[in-house]
Amino acid sequence: MSAPDPAATGPAAAGPTSPDPAATDLFGLVAYGELLAFDRLAADARLAPDLRRRAALSEMAAAEIAHYRWLTDRLAAWGVTPEEAMAPYVEALRAYHDSTEPRDWAEAVTKAYVGDAITDDFLRGIADGLAGPDRALLLDVLHDSRYAEFAGTEIRAAIEADPRAAGRLSMWARRLLGEALSQAGRVAAADRGALVALIGRTGGDVPGLLRRLTEAHAARMTAAGLNN
Amino acid sequence: MSAPDPAATGPAAAGPTSPDPAATDLFGLVAYGELLAFDRLAADARLAPDLRRRAALSEMAAAEIAHYRWLTDRLAAWGVTPEEAMAPYVEALRAYHDSTEPRDWAEAVTKAYVGDAITDDFLRGIADGLAGPDRALLLDVLHDSRYAEFAGTEIRAAIEADPRAAGRLSMWARRLLGEALSQAGRVAAADRGALVALIGRTGGDVPGLLRRLTEAHAARMTAAGLNN
Repeated sequence: MSAPDPAATGPAAAGPTSPDPAATDLFGLVAYGELLAFDRLAADARLAPDLRRRAALSEMAAAEIAHYRWLTDRLAAWGVTPEEAMAPYVEALRAYHDSTEPRDWAEAVTKAYVGDAITDDFLRGIADGLAGPDRALLLDVLHDSRYAEFAGTEIRAAIEADPRAAGRLSMWARRLLGEALSQAGRVAAADRGALVALIGRTGGDVPGLLRRLTEAHAARMTAAGLNN
Repeated sequence: MSAPDPAATGPAAAGPTSPDPAATDLFGLVAYGELLAFDRLAADARLAPDLRRRAALSEMAAAEIAHYRWLTDRLAAWGVTPEEAMAPYVEALRAYHDSTEPRDWAEAVTKAYVGDAITDDFLRGIADGLAGPDRALLLDVLHDSRYAEFAGTEIRAAIEADPRAAGRLSMWARRLLGEALSQAGRVAAADRGALVALIGRTGGDVPGLLRRLTEAHAARMTAAGLNN
Protein backbone atom coordinates (compact mmCIF):
# COMPACT_ATOMS: atom_id res chain seq x y z
CA MET A 1 0.00 0.00 0.00
CA SER A 2 1.71 3.16 -1.17
CA ALA A 3 0.91 6.52 0.40
CA PRO A 4 -1.22 8.91 -1.66
CA ASP A 5 0.72 11.60 -3.49
CA PRO A 6 -0.07 14.89 -1.70
CA ALA A 7 0.81 16.81 -4.87
CA ALA A 8 -1.80 14.96 -6.93
CA THR A 9 -4.65 17.19 -8.09
CA GLY A 10 -7.07 14.36 -8.90
CA PRO A 11 -8.63 11.74 -6.64
CA ALA A 12 -7.15 8.28 -6.09
CA ALA A 13 -8.01 5.63 -8.67
CA ALA A 14 -11.49 4.13 -8.48
CA GLY A 15 -12.05 1.02 -6.38
CA PRO A 16 -13.97 -2.16 -7.20
CA THR A 17 -17.51 -1.81 -8.52
CA SER A 18 -19.04 -3.73 -5.58
CA PRO A 19 -18.73 -1.22 -2.75
CA ASP A 20 -18.00 -1.68 0.93
CA PRO A 21 -21.16 -0.51 2.83
CA ALA A 22 -18.92 1.26 5.33
CA ALA A 23 -17.29 3.20 2.49
CA THR A 24 -20.62 4.25 0.93
CA ASP A 25 -21.94 5.48 4.30
CA LEU A 26 -18.69 7.23 5.18
CA PHE A 27 -18.36 8.86 1.76
CA GLY A 28 -21.99 10.05 2.04
CA LEU A 29 -21.26 11.56 5.45
CA VAL A 30 -18.04 13.23 4.32
CA ALA A 31 -19.52 14.43 0.99
CA TYR A 32 -22.44 16.15 2.70
CA GLY A 33 -20.01 17.61 5.22
CA GLU A 34 -18.00 19.08 2.31
CA LEU A 35 -21.09 20.51 0.59
CA LEU A 36 -22.21 22.23 3.80
CA ALA A 37 -18.68 23.37 4.63
CA PHE A 38 -18.48 24.99 1.18
CA ASP A 39 -21.76 26.80 1.79
CA ARG A 40 -20.84 28.04 5.28
CA LEU A 41 -17.23 29.01 4.49
CA ALA A 42 -18.41 30.94 1.42
CA ALA A 43 -20.88 32.84 3.61
CA ASP A 44 -18.33 33.34 6.43
CA ALA A 45 -15.89 34.85 3.91
CA ARG A 46 -18.09 37.96 3.98
CA LEU A 47 -16.88 38.55 7.53
CA ALA A 48 -13.30 39.08 6.30
CA PRO A 49 -11.78 42.48 7.08
CA ASP A 50 -10.22 42.79 3.59
CA LEU A 51 -10.34 41.24 0.13
CA ARG A 52 -7.16 39.20 0.58
CA ARG A 53 -8.55 37.40 3.61
CA ARG A 54 -11.97 37.09 2.01
CA ALA A 55 -10.40 35.39 -1.01
CA ALA A 56 -8.39 33.05 1.26
CA LEU A 57 -11.51 31.76 3.05
CA SER A 58 -13.31 31.55 -0.31
CA GLU A 59 -10.49 29.32 -1.58
CA MET A 60 -10.89 27.07 1.46
CA ALA A 61 -14.57 26.79 0.50
CA ALA A 62 -13.71 25.99 -3.13
CA ALA A 63 -11.41 23.13 -2.05
CA GLU A 64 -14.34 21.53 -0.20
CA ILE A 65 -16.49 21.40 -3.30
CA ALA A 66 -13.71 19.77 -5.33
CA HIS A 67 -13.49 17.02 -2.71
CA TYR A 68 -17.28 16.69 -2.69
CA ARG A 69 -17.09 15.92 -6.41
CA TRP A 70 -14.43 13.22 -5.96
CA LEU A 71 -16.50 11.43 -3.30
CA THR A 72 -19.82 11.63 -5.16
CA ASP A 73 -18.15 10.51 -8.40
CA ARG A 74 -16.92 7.42 -6.55
CA LEU A 75 -20.40 6.79 -5.11
CA ALA A 76 -21.94 7.18 -8.59
CA ALA A 77 -19.36 4.75 -10.05
CA TRP A 78 -20.65 2.22 -7.51
CA GLY A 79 -24.25 2.86 -8.62
CA VAL A 80 -25.03 4.61 -5.33
CA THR A 81 -27.09 7.82 -5.56
CA PRO A 82 -25.12 10.47 -3.62
CA GLU A 83 -28.35 11.90 -2.15
CA GLU A 84 -29.21 8.50 -0.66
CA ALA A 85 -25.77 8.06 0.85
CA MET A 86 -25.89 11.57 2.34
CA ALA A 87 -29.49 11.50 3.64
CA PRO A 88 -28.88 9.93 7.10
CA TYR A 89 -26.39 12.68 8.03
CA VAL A 90 -28.14 15.81 6.75
CA GLU A 91 -29.84 16.74 10.04
CA ALA A 92 -26.80 16.32 12.30
CA LEU A 93 -24.44 18.28 10.04
CA ARG A 94 -26.96 21.06 9.53
CA ALA A 95 -27.57 21.25 13.28
CA TYR A 96 -23.83 21.63 13.86
CA HIS A 97 -23.55 24.61 11.51
CA ASP A 98 -26.83 26.21 12.63
CA SER A 99 -25.63 26.15 16.24
CA THR A 100 -22.15 27.51 15.42
CA GLU A 101 -22.63 30.55 13.21
CA PRO A 102 -19.59 32.83 13.59
CA ARG A 103 -20.33 36.43 14.52
CA ASP A 104 -17.03 37.88 13.32
CA TRP A 105 -13.85 37.09 11.40
CA ALA A 106 -11.94 35.68 14.39
CA GLU A 107 -14.78 33.27 15.13
CA ALA A 108 -14.98 32.32 11.43
CA VAL A 109 -11.29 31.38 11.14
CA THR A 110 -11.40 29.60 14.51
CA LYS A 111 -14.35 27.55 13.29
CA ALA A 112 -12.51 26.68 10.05
CA TYR A 113 -9.36 25.77 12.03
CA VAL A 114 -11.18 23.61 14.57
CA GLY A 115 -13.63 21.99 12.14
CA ASP A 116 -11.06 21.06 9.48
CA ALA A 117 -8.72 19.56 12.08
CA ILE A 118 -11.37 17.48 13.87
CA THR A 119 -12.64 16.22 10.50
CA ASP A 120 -9.13 15.26 9.39
CA ASP A 121 -8.35 13.54 12.72
CA PHE A 122 -11.59 11.58 12.40
CA LEU A 123 -10.82 10.51 8.83
CA ARG A 124 -7.22 9.56 9.62
CA GLY A 125 -8.47 7.65 12.66
CA ILE A 126 -10.78 5.39 10.66
CA ALA A 127 -9.04 5.26 7.26
CA ASP A 128 -7.25 2.04 8.16
CA GLY A 129 -10.60 0.26 8.33
CA LEU A 130 -11.04 0.75 4.58
CA ALA A 131 -9.56 -1.23 1.69
CA GLY A 132 -6.72 0.33 -0.37
CA PRO A 133 -8.50 2.44 -3.02
CA ASP A 134 -11.21 3.66 -0.61
CA ARG A 135 -8.61 4.56 1.98
CA ALA A 136 -6.55 6.37 -0.65
CA LEU A 137 -9.53 8.50 -1.71
CA LEU A 138 -10.36 9.31 1.91
CA LEU A 139 -6.79 10.47 2.55
CA ASP A 140 -6.97 12.56 -0.64
CA VAL A 141 -9.83 14.66 0.78
CA LEU A 142 -7.91 15.68 3.92
CA HIS A 143 -7.48 19.45 4.11
CA ASP A 144 -4.37 21.07 2.67
CA SER A 145 -2.13 22.11 5.58
CA ARG A 146 -1.74 25.65 4.20
CA TYR A 147 -5.37 26.31 5.16
CA ALA A 148 -4.70 25.41 8.80
CA GLU A 149 -1.58 27.60 8.68
CA PHE A 150 -3.62 30.52 7.36
CA ALA A 151 -6.35 30.07 9.99
CA GLY A 152 -3.82 29.60 12.81
CA THR A 153 -1.99 32.79 11.77
CA GLU A 154 -5.27 34.72 11.74
CA ILE A 155 -6.21 33.47 15.23
CA ARG A 156 -2.82 34.49 16.66
CA ALA A 157 -3.10 37.89 14.94
CA ALA A 158 -6.56 38.45 16.47
CA ILE A 159 -5.18 37.68 19.95
CA GLU A 160 -2.16 39.90 19.39
CA ALA A 161 -4.40 42.78 18.31
CA ASP A 162 -6.64 42.31 21.36
CA PRO A 163 -5.42 39.99 24.16
CA ARG A 164 -8.97 39.75 25.54
CA ALA A 165 -9.89 37.84 22.35
CA ALA A 166 -8.00 34.79 23.69
CA GLY A 167 -10.63 34.10 26.35
CA ARG A 168 -13.55 34.64 24.02
CA LEU A 169 -12.07 32.46 21.25
CA SER A 170 -11.08 29.74 23.73
CA MET A 171 -14.71 29.58 24.87
CA TRP A 172 -15.86 29.58 21.23
CA ALA A 173 -13.49 26.70 20.38
CA ARG A 174 -14.78 24.69 23.35
CA ARG A 175 -18.32 25.28 22.13
CA LEU A 176 -17.34 24.14 18.61
CA LEU A 177 -15.88 20.94 20.03
CA GLY A 178 -18.93 20.37 22.22
CA GLU A 179 -21.34 20.83 19.32
CA ALA A 180 -19.22 18.60 17.08
CA LEU A 181 -19.16 15.80 19.66
CA SER A 182 -22.86 16.16 20.34
CA GLN A 183 -23.67 15.92 16.62
CA ALA A 184 -21.23 13.01 16.29
CA GLY A 185 -23.51 11.23 18.75
CA ARG A 186 -26.46 11.93 16.43
CA VAL A 187 -24.47 10.63 13.46
CA ALA A 188 -23.70 7.42 15.37
CA ALA A 189 -27.41 7.09 16.24
CA ALA A 190 -28.43 7.62 12.58
CA ASP A 191 -25.79 5.13 11.41
CA ARG A 192 -27.05 1.99 9.72
CA GLY A 193 -24.37 -0.09 11.44
CA ALA A 194 -21.57 0.18 8.91
CA LEU A 195 -19.83 3.27 10.31
CA VAL A 196 -19.61 1.93 13.86
CA ALA A 197 -18.43 -1.39 12.44
CA LEU A 198 -15.75 0.51 10.50
CA ILE A 199 -14.37 1.96 13.73
CA GLY A 200 -14.30 -1.59 15.11
CA ARG A 201 -12.27 -2.73 12.11
CA THR A 202 -9.53 -0.26 13.06
CA GLY A 203 -9.33 -1.99 16.46
CA GLY A 204 -10.98 0.97 18.23
CA ASP A 205 -14.41 1.97 19.51
CA VAL A 206 -16.56 5.13 19.46
CA PRO A 207 -15.64 6.38 22.98
CA GLY A 208 -11.93 5.81 22.33
CA LEU A 209 -12.09 7.65 19.01
CA LEU A 210 -13.93 10.62 20.55
CA ARG A 211 -11.39 10.75 23.38
CA ARG A 212 -8.49 10.87 20.91
CA LEU A 213 -10.23 13.63 18.90
CA THR A 214 -10.70 15.65 22.10
CA GLU A 215 -7.04 15.25 23.12
CA ALA A 216 -5.76 16.28 19.68
CA HIS A 217 -8.12 19.30 19.76
CA ALA A 218 -6.69 20.36 23.14
CA ALA A 219 -3.11 20.21 21.83
CA ARG A 220 -4.07 22.28 18.78
CA MET A 221 -5.79 24.93 20.86
CA THR A 222 -2.61 25.44 22.84
CA ALA A 223 -0.61 25.72 19.59
CA ALA A 224 -2.95 28.48 18.39
CA GLY A 225 -2.63 30.44 21.64
CA LEU A 226 -5.99 29.35 23.09
CA ASN A 227 -6.80 27.70 26.44
CA ASN A 228 -8.80 24.59 27.13
CA MET B 1 0.58 33.61 -31.26
CA SER B 2 -0.64 30.14 -30.40
CA ALA B 3 -4.11 29.58 -28.94
CA PRO B 4 -4.28 28.76 -25.22
CA ASP B 5 -4.69 25.09 -24.40
CA PRO B 6 -8.28 24.67 -23.13
CA ALA B 7 -7.27 21.49 -21.27
CA ALA B 8 -4.65 23.34 -19.20
CA THR B 9 -5.49 23.49 -15.50
CA GLY B 10 -3.05 26.26 -14.59
CA PRO B 11 -2.87 29.85 -15.78
CA ALA B 12 -0.81 30.98 -18.75
CA ALA B 13 2.84 31.79 -18.07
CA ALA B 14 3.59 35.11 -16.39
CA GLY B 15 4.24 38.18 -18.53
CA PRO B 16 6.95 40.82 -18.23
CA THR B 17 7.47 42.47 -14.87
CA SER B 18 6.63 45.97 -16.17
CA PRO B 19 2.88 45.76 -16.61
CA ASP B 20 0.59 47.26 -19.22
CA PRO B 21 -1.71 49.72 -17.32
CA ALA B 22 -4.65 48.42 -19.36
CA ALA B 23 -3.89 44.88 -18.19
CA THR B 24 -3.63 45.86 -14.51
CA ASP B 25 -6.96 47.72 -14.65
CA LEU B 26 -8.68 44.96 -16.61
CA PHE B 27 -7.34 42.20 -14.35
CA GLY B 28 -8.51 44.21 -11.32
CA LEU B 29 -11.99 44.52 -12.82
CA VAL B 30 -12.20 40.85 -13.77
CA ALA B 31 -10.69 39.65 -10.46
CA TYR B 32 -13.23 41.55 -8.40
CA GLY B 33 -15.95 40.27 -10.71
CA GLU B 34 -14.80 36.70 -9.99
CA LEU B 35 -14.68 37.25 -6.23
CA LEU B 36 -18.22 38.62 -6.21
CA ALA B 37 -19.47 35.96 -8.62
CA PHE B 38 -18.08 33.31 -6.26
CA ASP B 39 -19.93 34.89 -3.34
CA ARG B 40 -23.25 35.25 -5.16
CA LEU B 41 -23.20 31.86 -6.90
CA ALA B 42 -22.39 30.16 -3.59
CA ALA B 43 -25.38 31.89 -1.99
CA ASP B 44 -27.65 31.21 -5.00
CA ALA B 45 -26.78 27.49 -4.78
CA ARG B 46 -29.06 27.36 -1.74
CA LEU B 47 -31.99 27.90 -4.11
CA ALA B 48 -31.31 24.56 -5.83
CA PRO B 49 -34.17 22.03 -5.68
CA ASP B 50 -31.80 19.13 -4.91
CA LEU B 51 -28.24 18.39 -3.81
CA ARG B 52 -27.01 17.51 -7.30
CA ARG B 53 -28.01 20.89 -8.70
CA ARG B 54 -26.80 22.65 -5.58
CA ALA B 55 -23.38 21.05 -6.01
CA ALA B 56 -23.30 22.01 -9.72
CA LEU B 57 -23.83 25.71 -8.98
CA SER B 58 -21.34 25.47 -6.10
CA GLU B 59 -18.76 24.11 -8.55
CA MET B 60 -19.41 27.06 -10.88
CA ALA B 61 -18.68 29.30 -7.88
CA ALA B 62 -15.49 27.41 -7.05
CA ALA B 63 -14.19 27.87 -10.61
CA GLU B 64 -14.53 31.65 -10.20
CA ILE B 65 -12.30 31.73 -7.15
CA ALA B 66 -9.60 29.70 -8.91
CA HIS B 67 -9.57 32.29 -11.70
CA TYR B 68 -9.51 35.10 -9.14
CA ARG B 69 -6.30 33.62 -7.78
CA TRP B 70 -4.64 33.45 -11.22
CA LEU B 71 -5.39 37.12 -11.91
CA THR B 72 -4.34 38.41 -8.49
CA ASP B 73 -1.16 36.30 -8.60
CA ARG B 74 -0.31 38.02 -11.90
CA LEU B 75 -1.04 41.45 -10.41
CA ALA B 76 1.12 40.63 -7.37
CA ALA B 77 3.96 39.47 -9.66
CA TRP B 78 3.84 42.95 -11.21
CA GLY B 79 4.04 44.55 -7.75
CA VAL B 80 0.43 45.73 -8.00
CA THR B 81 -1.73 45.30 -4.87
CA PRO B 82 -4.87 43.43 -5.99
CA GLU B 83 -7.05 45.61 -3.72
CA GLU B 84 -5.80 48.75 -5.47
CA ALA B 85 -6.44 47.33 -8.92
CA MET B 86 -9.95 46.24 -7.91
CA ALA B 87 -10.99 49.37 -6.00
CA PRO B 88 -12.37 51.46 -8.92
CA TYR B 89 -14.84 48.71 -9.86
CA VAL B 90 -16.15 47.61 -6.46
CA GLU B 91 -19.23 49.85 -6.45
CA ALA B 92 -20.44 49.07 -9.97
CA LEU B 93 -20.07 45.29 -9.61
CA ARG B 94 -21.73 45.28 -6.20
CA ALA B 95 -24.60 47.39 -7.55
CA TYR B 96 -25.12 44.89 -10.37
CA HIS B 97 -25.48 41.96 -7.97
CA ASP B 98 -27.52 43.89 -5.40
CA SER B 99 -30.04 44.82 -8.10
CA THR B 100 -30.25 41.30 -9.55
CA GLU B 101 -30.79 38.94 -6.64
CA PRO B 102 -32.49 35.77 -7.93
CA ARG B 103 -35.71 34.78 -6.14
CA ASP B 104 -35.71 31.14 -7.23
CA TRP B 105 -33.64 28.46 -8.93
CA ALA B 106 -34.74 29.33 -12.49
CA GLU B 107 -33.71 32.95 -11.97
CA ALA B 108 -30.41 31.83 -10.42
CA VAL B 109 -29.39 29.65 -13.38
CA THR B 110 -30.59 32.29 -15.85
CA LYS B 111 -28.41 34.86 -14.09
CA ALA B 112 -25.40 32.52 -14.20
CA TYR B 113 -26.06 31.78 -17.90
CA VAL B 114 -26.46 35.42 -18.90
CA GLY B 115 -23.71 36.82 -16.68
CA ASP B 116 -21.03 34.28 -17.64
CA ALA B 117 -21.76 34.71 -21.34
CA ILE B 118 -21.72 38.52 -21.32
CA THR B 119 -18.48 38.47 -19.34
CA ASP B 120 -16.86 36.04 -21.76
CA ASP B 121 -18.03 38.02 -24.81
CA PHE B 122 -16.59 41.16 -23.26
CA LEU B 123 -13.24 39.48 -22.54
CA ARG B 124 -13.01 37.91 -25.99
CA GLY B 125 -13.91 41.26 -27.52
CA ILE B 126 -11.02 43.10 -25.93
CA ALA B 127 -8.41 40.34 -25.54
CA ASP B 128 -6.75 41.28 -28.82
CA GLY B 129 -5.78 44.65 -27.33
CA LEU B 130 -3.43 42.88 -24.91
CA ALA B 131 0.08 41.53 -25.48
CA GLY B 132 0.59 37.75 -25.73
CA PRO B 133 0.97 36.57 -22.11
CA ASP B 134 -1.72 38.93 -20.79
CA ARG B 135 -4.11 37.90 -23.54
CA ALA B 136 -3.39 34.23 -22.84
CA LEU B 137 -4.21 34.63 -19.13
CA LEU B 138 -7.42 36.50 -19.97
CA LEU B 139 -8.53 33.72 -22.30
CA ASP B 140 -7.70 31.18 -19.56
CA VAL B 141 -10.29 32.71 -17.23
CA LEU B 142 -13.17 32.33 -19.70
CA HIS B 143 -15.90 30.09 -18.29
CA ASP B 144 -15.86 26.37 -19.04
CA SER B 145 -18.57 25.66 -21.62
CA ARG B 146 -20.01 22.82 -19.52
CA TYR B 147 -21.31 25.42 -17.07
CA ALA B 148 -23.27 27.17 -19.82
CA GLU B 149 -24.58 23.79 -20.95
CA PHE B 150 -25.72 23.00 -17.42
CA ALA B 151 -27.44 26.38 -16.99
CA GLY B 152 -29.03 26.23 -20.46
CA THR B 153 -30.41 22.75 -19.73
CA GLU B 154 -31.88 23.97 -16.43
CA ILE B 155 -33.56 26.96 -18.12
CA ARG B 156 -35.13 24.75 -20.77
CA ALA B 157 -36.28 22.28 -18.09
CA ALA B 158 -37.91 25.11 -16.10
CA ILE B 159 -39.81 26.23 -19.21
CA GLU B 160 -40.82 22.68 -20.03
CA ALA B 161 -42.15 22.16 -16.51
CA ASP B 162 -44.12 25.43 -16.65
CA PRO B 163 -44.47 27.18 -20.03
CA ARG B 164 -45.45 30.43 -18.28
CA ALA B 165 -41.88 30.56 -16.94
CA ALA B 166 -40.63 31.54 -20.41
CA GLY B 167 -42.21 35.01 -20.18
CA ARG B 168 -41.03 35.62 -16.65
CA LEU B 169 -37.45 34.45 -17.37
CA SER B 170 -37.30 36.43 -20.62
CA MET B 171 -38.17 39.56 -18.66
CA TRP B 172 -35.61 38.61 -16.02
CA ALA B 173 -32.89 38.12 -18.68
CA ARG B 174 -33.69 41.54 -20.18
CA ARG B 175 -33.38 43.07 -16.75
CA LEU B 176 -30.01 41.32 -16.22
CA LEU B 177 -28.74 42.73 -19.51
CA GLY B 178 -30.07 46.18 -18.69
CA GLU B 179 -28.40 46.22 -15.28
CA ALA B 180 -25.15 44.88 -16.75
CA LEU B 181 -25.06 47.61 -19.42
CA SER B 182 -25.96 50.28 -16.92
CA GLN B 183 -23.15 49.19 -14.59
CA ALA B 184 -20.79 48.93 -17.57
CA GLY B 185 -21.43 52.63 -18.00
CA ARG B 186 -20.37 53.18 -14.38
CA VAL B 187 -17.25 51.10 -14.95
CA ALA B 188 -16.36 53.21 -17.99
CA ALA B 189 -16.92 56.37 -15.91
CA ALA B 190 -14.68 55.03 -13.09
CA ASP B 191 -12.01 53.98 -15.58
CA ARG B 192 -8.66 55.75 -15.33
CA GLY B 193 -8.34 55.81 -19.11
CA ALA B 194 -6.59 52.53 -19.74
CA LEU B 195 -9.68 50.34 -20.23
CA VAL B 196 -11.29 52.62 -22.80
CA ALA B 197 -7.92 52.92 -24.53
CA LEU B 198 -7.72 49.12 -24.59
CA ILE B 199 -11.00 48.91 -26.50
CA GLY B 200 -9.54 51.45 -28.93
CA ARG B 201 -6.49 49.22 -29.44
CA THR B 202 -8.78 46.46 -30.71
CA GLY B 203 -10.02 48.89 -33.38
CA GLY B 204 -13.40 49.29 -31.66
CA ASP B 205 -15.16 51.72 -29.34
CA VAL B 206 -17.39 51.48 -26.27
CA PRO B 207 -20.76 51.85 -28.08
CA GLY B 208 -19.75 49.30 -30.71
CA LEU B 209 -18.64 46.79 -28.06
CA LEU B 210 -21.88 47.21 -26.09
CA ARG B 211 -23.90 46.73 -29.28
CA ARG B 212 -22.10 43.48 -30.08
CA LEU B 213 -22.62 42.23 -26.51
CA THR B 214 -26.34 42.99 -26.81
CA GLU B 215 -26.65 41.17 -30.14
CA ALA B 216 -24.84 38.09 -28.86
CA HIS B 217 -27.07 38.12 -25.76
CA ALA B 218 -30.19 38.16 -27.96
CA ALA B 219 -28.99 35.14 -29.96
CA ARG B 220 -28.26 33.24 -26.76
CA MET B 221 -31.68 33.99 -25.31
CA THR B 222 -33.31 32.45 -28.35
CA ALA B 223 -31.08 29.37 -28.01
CA ALA B 224 -32.23 28.92 -24.40
CA GLY B 225 -35.92 29.21 -25.33
CA LEU B 226 -36.34 32.81 -24.16
CA ASN B 227 -37.64 35.87 -26.05
CA ASN B 228 -36.07 39.27 -26.43
